[in-house]
Amino acid sequence: MKHHYSSYISKRILLATILLLGCFESRVYGKTVHEDGLPSWNESPRKEQIVHFVNEVTDPLSSNFVAPEDRIATFDNDGTLWVEKPMYTHLFAIFDRCRELVAQNPDLKEIEPFKAIIKKDISYFSRLYENHSLDTILGQLLAVPFGGMTVKNYENWNQKWLNAWKHPRFKVGYKQLIYQPMLELIQYLKANDFQVYIFTADEGSFLRLVSEDLYDIPSERVQGSAIRLEYIPENGKSSLIRTYQAQYLNNWSAKPRLINQVIGKRPILAAGNSNGDLEMLQFVDEQPNSLALLVRHTDAEREYQYDHHAEEVQSLANERGWVIVDMKDDWKSVFPSSLE
Amino acid sequence: MKHHYSSYISKRILLATILLLGCFESRVYGKTVHEDGLPSWNESPRKEQIVHFVNEVTDPLSSNFVAPEDRIATFDNDGTLWVEKPMYTHLFAIFDRCRELVAQNPDLKEIEPFKAIIKKDISYFSRLYENHSLDTILGQLLAVPFGGMTVKNYENWNQKWLNAWKHPRFKVGYKQLIYQPMLELIQYLKANDFQVYIFTADEGSFLRLVSEDLYDIPSERVQGSAIRLEYIPENGKSSLIRTYQAQYLNNWSAKPRLINQVIGKRPILAAGNSNGDLEMLQFVDEQPNSLALLVRHTDAEREYQYDHHAEEVQSLANERGWVIVDMKDDWKSVFPSSLE
Repeated sequence: MKHHYSSYISKRILLATILLLGCFESRVYGKTVHEDGLPSWNESPRKEQIVHFVNEVTDPLSSNFVAPEDRIATFDNDGTLWVEKPMYTHLFAIFDRCRELVAQNPDLKEIEPFKAIIKKDISYFSRLYENHSLDTILGQLLAVPFGGMTVKNYENWNQKWLNAWKHPRFKVGYKQLIYQPMLELIQYLKANDFQVYIFTADEGSFLRLVSEDLYDIPSERVQGSAIRLEYIPENGKSSLIRTYQAQYLNNWSAKPRLINQVIGKRPILAAGNSNGDLEMLQFVDEQPNSLALLVRHTDAEREYQYDHHAEEVQSLANERGWVIVDMKDDWKSVFPSSLE
Repeated sequence: MKHHYSSYISKRILLATILLLGCFESRVYGKTVHEDGLPSWNESPRKEQIVHFVNEVTDPLSSNFVAPEDRIATFDNDGTLWVEKPMYTHLFAIFDRCRELVAQNPDLKEIEPFKAIIKKDISYFSRLYENHSLDTILGQLLAVPFGGMTVKNYENWNQKWLNAWKHPRFKVGYKQLIYQPMLELIQYLKANDFQVYIFTADEGSFLRLVSEDLYDIPSERVQGSAIRLEYIPENGKSSLIRTYQAQYLNNWSAKPRLINQVIGKRPILAAGNSNGDLEMLQFVDEQPNSLALLVRHTDAEREYQYDHHAEEVQSLANERGWVIVDMKDDWKSVFPSSLE
């Protein structure tokens, strides 16, 4: 771990100074900082459980202490970190892409999935979703509309789309559709040396476009569904091209399986909101020192109120005594302040 | 990034003190440290190219500067970081496991892959390898011998095996079969804020058992081939069980594809030694600021001398002007000093 350049010495001095200043700041403002760690959370048993858990696993004198390298937290994204109603943001992008393709080639409107999109036949997609089949839902929805694109062009198309998109009800962009209390929870965990990951059923490469900006979570900590790519070493300028086939659908039991494949350790904290997160929460809950957190959408006024696609996981959460966050009761504010 | 506990204050003071002490140490021994950054490398154009590259990408005043979050390096393991002759270490483990199973159930010796192992029919495995087919080689070799085991039991079996195994020629364990110059390169890169990953064709879960100990590379930075798992929520104690099927074979073009899937960024440095690394090296080389490094096994006396399975990548390396490390000429020592 030795470094060999003079600039490093000044960097070390700078870092040491910042750390020392931080000590004084913490000493002076310690109490305030403690109370304000999760300012958008109401004082409630849920907040207490979270803070108690973090205190325990970070206290070297506690029998529940967990070494920093094992402080892994995995979050779902849709409905857990940002709004998923009336439809996943990712789906809005996919549908807009399909409409664009149909405009370029009207023959497509006789072919699925374009046909269902043009006819607003949501049941077609519900059936694909309920089917739990990797090939059908991912192939039809995530792969086909962007098939043949380079990874780079896919990123450019979606970045442009994300910059322009507004939520149909709230009339704001994606940056203002994240849950402020959950953002604070991520920051709080990171400040306590947790490695915070997102395991989403969305395509990882979609969410990665915004994860750093939204949550300060870098791309390698965002894992999701994936499309099979082809590597093309064309003209000495190789590229990755998206095929029309699925590689991985990251939902249900696929979440713990992908956690094992990518991280190789069991997280000690997981947060989700729907049945698609059940196995991930269960996988984490069975660790001796762990916290499983379930977000319930109970606030029709500030966000949405619904339990569908979550009945099973809510029942398990009750049975196992997980931290069930009631959005209406537990959150002082839902969105970043500029929205409210 | 605020932290809220008094223990944190003392941790910060401790860290600041260590950093300050580090400054003095660097100041006093600065010159020596610089010269000794890669002490097992002979002074050669290869070492110069590596040091020049690292200087450039870490110098904020250089037009080649790369921000720390994009300083990603990916290393192959077999033949690049540790000895792969006479056979991959991973294969020694798999073959021992097969022999153990045949001893328990002699009928197995009529069934592949057990039959080929007992008869020492290496051509059976060569054909599987050359076939490049995920299902045949991984299913037969990586999955079948450990099928039905929990992930935990798989880890225990292999850890025990690794602790006991000795290399047939060198008569030492795996810890003494890593290349000291490459270990120094990893340390040197990490000291310069690189994120160092291993992308291996071995099963990731095998190499992860030792990666932290050998290279100080944590499990989430080790990505490899994978077996399909099943998630079993049995008796409220869920587990991941290994199936008899392959999930991913991480070699050839699969390496850049997995890099994209797991990290979502193109590395700026890659190191490999065989045709299985060609696409990863090419993928990295085409970045504007990048270094592709190829290890050549030229030292029959201290290690091995061979070019087979590397002809194609060596030819591309010559054509593209990659850093071609000649083990005999470029390395002062090959293994950790206790071995030589």
